[in-house]
Amino acid sequence: MADYIMAQANGRTIPKEDKIFGISNRAKAMIAKEGRDKVVNATIGALLDDDGKLVVLSSVADVFKTLAPEDYAEYAPIGGIAEFKPAIRKAAFFDFEPKSFTEVVATPGGTGGIRDIIGNYSKPGDAVLTSDWYWANYKSIAGEIGRTLETYTLLNEEGTFNKEDFSAKLNEILAKQDSLVIIINTPAHNPTGYSMTLGDWDCIIDAVKEAGSDKKITLYVDVAYIDFAGDESEYRKFLPKLEGLPENILPVIGYSASKTFTLYGMRCGAMICMAPTAEIAAEFKQVCEFSARASWSNSPRAAQKVIAKIYEDEDLLAKVNAERAYYRDLLIKRGKAFEQAASDADLEIVPFDAGFFASVPCDNPDEVSKKLEAEGIFLVPLAKGLRVSVASVSEARCREIPAKIKAAMK
Amino acid sequence: MADYIMAQANGRTIPKEDKIFGISNRAKAMIAKEGRDKVVNATIGALLDDDGKLVVLSSVADVFKTLAPEDYAEYAPIGGIAEFKPAIRKAAFFDFEPKSFTEVVATPGGTGGIRDIIGNYSKPGDAVLTSDWYWANYKSIAGEIGRTLETYTLLNEEGTFNKEDFSAKLNEILAKQDSLVIIINTPAHNPTGYSMTLGDWDCIIDAVKEAGSDKKITLYVDVAYIDFAGDESEYRKFLPKLEGLPENILPVIGYSASKTFTLYGMRCGAMICMAPTAEIAAEFKQVCEFSARASWSNSPRAAQKVIAKIYEDEDLLAKVNAERAYYRDLLIKRGKAFEQAASDADLEIVPFDAGFFASVPCDNPDEVSKKLEAEGIFLVPLAKGLRVSVASVSEARCREIPAKIKAAMK
Repeated sequence: MADYIMAQANGRTIPKEDKIFGISNRAKAMIAKEGRDKVVNATIGALLDDDGKLVVLSSVADVFKTLAPEDYAEYAPIGGIAEFKPAIRKAAFFDFEPKSFTEVVATPGGTGGIRDIIGNYSKPGDAVLTSDWYWANYKSIAGEIGRTLETYTLLNEEGTFNKEDFSAKLNEILAKQDSLVIIINTPAHNPTGYSMTLGDWDCIIDAVKEAGSDKKITLYVDVAYIDFAGDESEYRKFLPKLEGLPENILPVIGYSASKTFTLYGMRCGAMICMAPTAEIAAEFKQVCEFSARASWSNSPRAAQKVIAKIYEDEDLLAKVNAERAYYRDLLIKRGKAFEQAASDADLEIVPFDAGFFASVPCDNPDEVSKKLEAEGIFLVPLAKGLRVSVASVSEARCREIPAKIKAAMK
Repeated sequence: MADYIMAQANGRTIPKEDKIFGISNRAKAMIAKEGRDKVVNATIGALLDDDGKLVVLSSVADVFKTLAPEDYAEYAPIGGIAEFKPAIRKAAFFDFEPKSFTEVVATPGGTGGIRDIIGNYSKPGDAVLTSDWYWANYKSIAGEIGRTLETYTLLNEEGTFNKEDFSAKLNEILAKQDSLVIIINTPAHNPTGYSMTLGDWDCIIDAVKEAGSDKKITLYVDVAYIDFAGDESEYRKFLPKLEGLPENILPVIGYSASKTFTLYGMRCGAMICMAPTAEIAAEFKQVCEFSARASWSNSPRAAQKVIAKIYEDEDLLAKVNAERAYYRDLLIKRGKAFEQAASDADLEIVPFDAGFFASVPCDNPDEVSKKLEAEGIFLVPLAKGLRVSVASVSEARCREIPAKIKAAMK
């Protein structure tokens, strides 16, 4: 435990510096010294074009320009402005119409939603469950409010969903606590690019149901990358599986405007419950709005208004969707190029489907990462390997990186 | 304790509906039915002009229009973009130049800063201290992360700062815990409009020092309303008193862009430490950035950029300050009108100095508030009385309200 002068650790381990921030700074320093073409910065969690410039959908930027002062300056209601709610619900569900009881609560990006769900559907001291490959911030969010993060092994030796370990870890935790928040990051999982198949979902649902009706289980599906995975309808085929579940299971969709609308810095997202009863949906709204007010108060209004305006105008919506599809194709090509190059270089990667990131299993990620940095390749070392952001480098770079990782690992 | 279906109470009492939201909805319904001129909505925590329209400084709105997509769409660093930090520091301190070690951490409005300070400088189960007249959200923020809010009596029978009770409550809590976060909302306190005098500050500092060097005390000064209190320099004369304190006392300024720049809905603020040592300042940055990342991640970028642009251009800054001064004068006139009318009506109010709100002590605030609602006057009932937002009603209305409250109290 770190020794603080004035602050309280409260069970947390707080690094002196954010890891990704440090790597990113070293990449910038090398760019300044050696030139942009000598550096591959595959650490960034945002979609960049082939010249390294942030992609902002021009159709979305055009709507931003139309905002009136009251659209951004006025406080939004805690749960979001009225016209935002159906818009973000439509964005999240696309052509799927849930029969469950849904309520929308606005959040400042995806992070806020995860925080609120853990804060409301677990107790201090509880464990929260996610897979062993996970977005590092899940652990920080849980730890910040006195919860721990426990993990199951995402994939078995065949490289498919490890339903046995998911079920085992679920039951192990539920032997000790009466309720559990499970975070499933899919499709296009950060950090691996894995997407749960419909068969995987059946296993998840079965295991959760088998835990017994005396346990309260919140299934938080973090779909931050869903709109960059592939066809919108295709990647939402798992949603009907979240309906008609027993009343002790509460599915919640964690949706983010950061990627879908390229509005990362505007901090907009939503948690949407798919509750089995109206009462559970009303309670969801009540407790999540309370937690929001008591953590950051209302969420930023500007992005809510931008998204509302997009969904109020069919032509505009079609334009935004078409522009996103163009960049999604670009991203998918990069991912496929990385996957192919890894295969060609005989580099083992975590089974990749789509998304911003791919991961390479590795026993000594910090060491390998350091070696690669010396060659101008900047990646993020994780507990179990290396994360490569295919979102932030060109297709040509995606083809080059695997062989270099392979060499550095030798 | 409420009985939840799926959620966990975790020691919190969560109302079915936000109180102010409910009142505000009833006010809107009455306006729709009876007409705008029949309703006085003195519940709103934002500055409205005499026609009930939100005041957005046009000089600030002009800067908003110049934002490029990357100015709002890119993720900001957790602590804020580089050019924002000196700008918001200058905004907070104005012409005062602290000798203490300062660090700036961006927050999504004032709320986020309070959350982070309580989360980092107290332990779960601890009490946080503020005055008996307080912004209701302080209690929610503390409760959300398992702390309690305890209060001292702000004013004695002479209507001046109750230094004895401040000192007594401080020592009472510190007999039970080793560290304490104290929240002082001044100048132009929400909800009373009271401002701590320089003499009050001497008493606060003396009491905190006398608590002993083995206690860690964080003095969080919530100055959300400082730039609408009066002359900028005059209202910052207490700041030097926060310097040169023993190393067990950490003053932190909670500054909000919501009021100062009329950017409420853009969620921008900062916590700025005035640390006695460089190490304590570095630790402040480290722990507060961690908590931010683990609660809402980065703060919205757009408002940070707007404020940076204002401080990069002297003429523009002068224009913003002049425009704010115009509306500040308008607000001050409303406050004085309310104060005079209360005196004329023989209505006791909490000693008022300046700001968005004034308060009327009252034994049965819910009942009186209900009576006033029937007459078209909407106020916020608090534990100890009624809060009147002079920021949201005209000077003429400010003159009318006190006599009507007096009558309703009879």
